[in-house]
Amino acid sequence: MRLIDGRTGIEVIEREQCLDLLRAGDVGRVAVVDSGHPVIFPVNYAMDGETIVFLTAEGTKLDASLRGGPVSFEIDETDRGARTGWSVIVTGWARVVTAPDHVARLQGLGLQPWSEHRKDNWVAIQPERITGRRVVAVEGAG
Amino acid sequence: MRLIDGRTGIEVIEREQCLDLLRAGDVGRVAVVDSGHPVIFPVNYAMDGETIVFLTAEGTKLDASLRGGPVSFEIDETDRGARTGWSVIVTGWARVVTAPDHVARLQGLGLQPWSEHRKDNWVAIQPERITGRRVVAVEGAG
Repeated sequence: MRLIDGRTGIEVIEREQCLDLLRAGDVGRVAVVDSGHPVIFPVNYAMDGETIVFLTAEGTKLDASLRGGPVSFEIDETDRGARTGWSVIVTGWARVVTAPDHVARLQGLGLQPWSEHRKDNWVAIQPERITGRRVVAVEGAG
Repeated sequence: MRLIDGRTGIEVIEREQCLDLLRAGDVGRVAVVDSGHPVIFPVNYAMDGETIVFLTAEGTKLDASLRGGPVSFEIDETDRGARTGWSVIVTGWARVVTAPDHVARLQGLGLQPWSEHRKDNWVAIQPERITGRRVVAVEGAG
């Protein structure tokens, strides 16, 4: 079934397909609120079921912001030539995973941060809402 | 000159090079705060000097959030195979451009939103801070 968003003319991606796109990806962007200001960070992530997990370095601003705060997470892919693309946006709450058995399970996911800096804190985003949109090629758009 | 961030081991991209990357791109992500929650939206943007500009549809949540609020804007590029990538993050304030001569100038930038939905409001983000980071390939990272 294809759903078209009546307001924007954009195709809606259903939840299950959003989850498939999340499982196929590995880099997304996290937005948090820091003193009333939005802050975006790109992260290298993995999926633990329907939960987004990634590593942060202890003591960083990102690490502090993620302790219990509301977060938004985004992945997208665009084809500049064809002027098409899709995005998936997840909103939820972040928490730092500390239980040893839970950490051990996450360590088994095979997530490897790209930078050499030591990152020891597992952060989990449990989705409250997952939405996706796809812009398809249209004649005479613009 | 190459600068390495001592905390993260990541190469710092200087402001002028961040601006070059912003000028070369066309899709970024905007984060705003809506009722205390961070919200991310992908946007098709253009540069007007050092100002990021894009179009929104009047009456949308994004349009409302962007009226005078603090924003964060991000672009990135990653090479999954090589495990390398870069990101540029801009923080600043958004405003809706209404002056006819200013709107006329922005219309001359050639920005074409990808979706067919009518978008009439020009939003400008004047950067307060522009930072960039590059993750370079490292032996035995992970």
